[in-house]
Amino acid sequence: MSYAALVKHYRTLFHLGHVESMASWDEATMMPVGGGEARGEALSTLRGVIHQQATHEKLPGLFAAAAKEAAALSPWQQANLRLMEREWVRATALPQGLVEAMSRAESRSEQAWRKLGPDNDFAGFLPYFREVVRLKREAAQALGNKLALSPYDALLDEFEPGARATSIAPLFARLRAFLPGLIAKAVERQSCEAAVVCEGPFPVDRQHWLVLELMRRLGFDFDRGRVDAAPHPFCSNVPTDVRIAVHYDVDDYTNAMMGVVHEAGHAKYQQNLPPDWLDQPVGCVRSASLHEGQSLLHEMQVGRGRAFLEFAAPMIAEAFPSAVAPGREAFNAEHLFLRLTRVKPGLIRRSADEATYPCHIILRFELEKGLIDGSLRPEDVPEAWDASMHEMLGLATRGNDRDGCLQDVHWPAGMFGLFPGYTLGALTAAQMFGAVLSAHPDLNEQIRRGEFRVLDGWLREHVWSLGSSLGSMELVERATGGALSTKAFEQHLERRYVLRES
Amino acid sequence: MSYAALVKHYRTLFHLGHVESMASWDEATMMPVGGGEARGEALSTLRGVIHQQATHEKLPGLFAAAAKEAAALSPWQQANLRLMEREWVRATALPQGLVEAMSRAESRSEQAWRKLGPDNDFAGFLPYFREVVRLKREAAQALGNKLALSPYDALLDEFEPGARATSIAPLFARLRAFLPGLIAKAVERQSCEAAVVCEGPFPVDRQHWLVLELMRRLGFDFDRGRVDAAPHPFCSNVPTDVRIAVHYDVDDYTNAMMGVVHEAGHAKYQQNLPPDWLDQPVGCVRSASLHEGQSLLHEMQVGRGRAFLEFAAPMIAEAFPSAVAPGREAFNAEHLFLRLTRVKPGLIRRSADEATYPCHIILRFELEKGLIDGSLRPEDVPEAWDASMHEMLGLATRGNDRDGCLQDVHWPAGMFGLFPGYTLGALTAAQMFGAVLSAHPDLNEQIRRGEFRVLDGWLREHVWSLGSSLGSMELVERATGGALSTKAFEQHLERRYVLRES
Repeated sequence: MSYAALVKHYRTLFHLGHVESMASWDEATMMPVGGGEARGEALSTLRGVIHQQATHEKLPGLFAAAAKEAAALSPWQQANLRLMEREWVRATALPQGLVEAMSRAESRSEQAWRKLGPDNDFAGFLPYFREVVRLKREAAQALGNKLALSPYDALLDEFEPGARATSIAPLFARLRAFLPGLIAKAVERQSCEAAVVCEGPFPVDRQHWLVLELMRRLGFDFDRGRVDAAPHPFCSNVPTDVRIAVHYDVDDYTNAMMGVVHEAGHAKYQQNLPPDWLDQPVGCVRSASLHEGQSLLHEMQVGRGRAFLEFAAPMIAEAFPSAVAPGREAFNAEHLFLRLTRVKPGLIRRSADEATYPCHIILRFELEKGLIDGSLRPEDVPEAWDASMHEMLGLATRGNDRDGCLQDVHWPAGMFGLFPGYTLGALTAAQMFGAVLSAHPDLNEQIRRGEFRVLDGWLREHVWSLGSSLGSMELVERATGGALSTKAFEQHLERRYVLRES
Repeated sequence: MSYAALVKHYRTLFHLGHVESMASWDEATMMPVGGGEARGEALSTLRGVIHQQATHEKLPGLFAAAAKEAAALSPWQQANLRLMEREWVRATALPQGLVEAMSRAESRSEQAWRKLGPDNDFAGFLPYFREVVRLKREAAQALGNKLALSPYDALLDEFEPGARATSIAPLFARLRAFLPGLIAKAVERQSCEAAVVCEGPFPVDRQHWLVLELMRRLGFDFDRGRVDAAPHPFCSNVPTDVRIAVHYDVDDYTNAMMGVVHEAGHAKYQQNLPPDWLDQPVGCVRSASLHEGQSLLHEMQVGRGRAFLEFAAPMIAEAFPSAVAPGREAFNAEHLFLRLTRVKPGLIRRSADEATYPCHIILRFELEKGLIDGSLRPEDVPEAWDASMHEMLGLATRGNDRDGCLQDVHWPAGMFGLFPGYTLGALTAAQMFGAVLSAHPDLNEQIRRGEFRVLDGWLREHVWSLGSSLGSMELVERATGGALSTKAFEQHLERRYVLRES
């Protein structure tokens, strides 16, 4: 059976990916500073071995033979076969020389960016950036030819299988029209709201207690995962052993608190993937937007809502007994809500609120499309950035590229096509939460009591347990009864930020 | 250059070993319980990839070609070439079918032992044990044929390259004659010593403080390593990132304290291996006995001696401020010395003291030799064990196999030939420490002040920086001016346990 041989081969790839993931997690959380160089070399060798396996010479023959067996396979097996072949086509699409040139250029560019970004030196960074864009355009062209996609879609398809710029553009156009008005109303509305804020310090061990308590109540399975501290929050991707990293800031516990609610959404998706398929492509997380959909559903739809904050408020108060009045007022649900739903246009994507965040993404989507299709030259990015920020958020970045086009690692590291997933995820989260609410009108009552069984049951049935057996868009449509649109997200923003309802 | 190609190939193997080591460390220290099965599979796949690389079809040609270049290589390169070839010969010596049968039998046997050992069920364990011994004898025969060694020596040679049973036997015979008398005198002498013991509990965080402080003073490089808690102490083997695991027992801080001094010996050896050769066979730790020689030099020669305990006593007192008089008396150096140098014949190797420990090893060495050469049948092990324990330590294990031949994981897991290294290490430690003392008569004064620079300098020059460029026995002889013998160890035991001098 060629299909069985392929299953075995992709199981090997999964196992090697498991080890790679753990070594990367260790690098971010545990590794002492002097271990970095040797770890980098070891990981690079391991990735080379993984690439060899992913492009193994036996694969074309196996895929050809398996195609003839496909009729006898179950739908999940068929989906699995398609996904294997997709991975293989992508892995073999580019000539080895180009892959290596990209790897070198991106590594050099990222290192240069680490210094030149904080120095606000776009001119210094430009030669690196040009080279990264040049090679990425060449790769996108080659990938596009192989996959019968436009160059940008070929890149996008890595993170959002099946998504096309032409299907994303109308959604983003709608948001581009909607958001400025919404943001203005929210800012206006919030101008007369005064939230009590509790001054720190908030001891790390007490924050950790709160984090563990929240994870436990949210249904994170500690038998198959753990939580540690790291400079940046993340969630690793071994479904039987999901590692969450949280950043503890002694001056502001809400970073760790909202961070872990966000990562718990990623983690629960992985811990509830279909158990019989975990080591196969069809058993994996489907796309960046579905992954982000789960984390934003947890953080934004649930976590910053009144019901959840009423549930969490007593836990927060218990976490920090040393905080004294009048600061303790800050620990009641209403003040938490006001604090955690502030809308404030800013230059930095990572710290943007829920309402302004899509503006940062739309800007990047438009610019990276232009960079890849050649209509935008690398040297013109700062000006385009400034114009777009000005138009959407009324802010300027002229002469301040550090807080403009030099703020993210993605482009310096050659990652093009990932950004749209963040906002597609926000739309997905809103649409899914709306669907659960329709099916279970008392959902917010349950959340207020800290009960997530019904919510989790819905997500398990409609998302988590499906792995990659359906395309993202098909999955969203089946789960919510309609194609992905901006409607639920707009309603959510209106309700939360203008009406201040939930 | 074939040699250069081999260097590159063994670098790849080293990198894959790095990742394997980290995943194993994670398994022992960090992994949640539910992650075990998938981790086992991932590690097994990785080991398969490593085995493929270690037996790569291009290697015979490269070794043949490199042999012709050998004259142009430096002595270190020549040693490196010999070690590469040795690894390759061992990796290819056994037919694949036998390797797989052993792996299955040993895995089954170890699992059975985990239950049957605590149940004291030797009869139940016997079928598993027979199968492990049968296959191991077959493997030892095949390895021996390939390496021109006796079957047992072929196994021993894996852990102690160059060592032979015939060279170990006279050393162990000498100890067998010497130890019973020494032990009797020590027990007699100690019968009238009363050490004050401090009752716990000893909070884990304070024990951890003490452990970190000791590691720091002993010169562990925290930029290239870390320490964590685990059920059993160990030291991992990536020289740029050495992970020590310590077991914290709230009722007895001396486990963690002496454990970390022991592991620090292993760790410092690795952190001081020759930096230019770290990713090559010649840059690795030489043998089990040299590795254990470093840890036992730290734990036994230094750590349980009066000078070190005078240095450590104030730190211990500072670690546990909550302990009250009269228990605090226990924290003075003299009471610590009495406590940490108790000789007491017992059944369990792991908890044996320095004087009785070799008896446990000699017993195992003799029995495992017999098992491999066929002169001892697996079913006769309990009786032979009881007889040997009775002769050397005056203790019986008849009907108590749980505390006899079922106490160690080694044989159930198919590890034969490793045990002698523990006692060869003790001899090495005594002989080396004696040599440093001769060269630096004020060494104990330095240790009393917590100064380890001179000791470390000697070890770095004579052991650590040499990697595997010399054979163990040659290294010991060059370092100490004489072949490895029992003399220094005997003198040390006399001085410490009979004269109670240091």
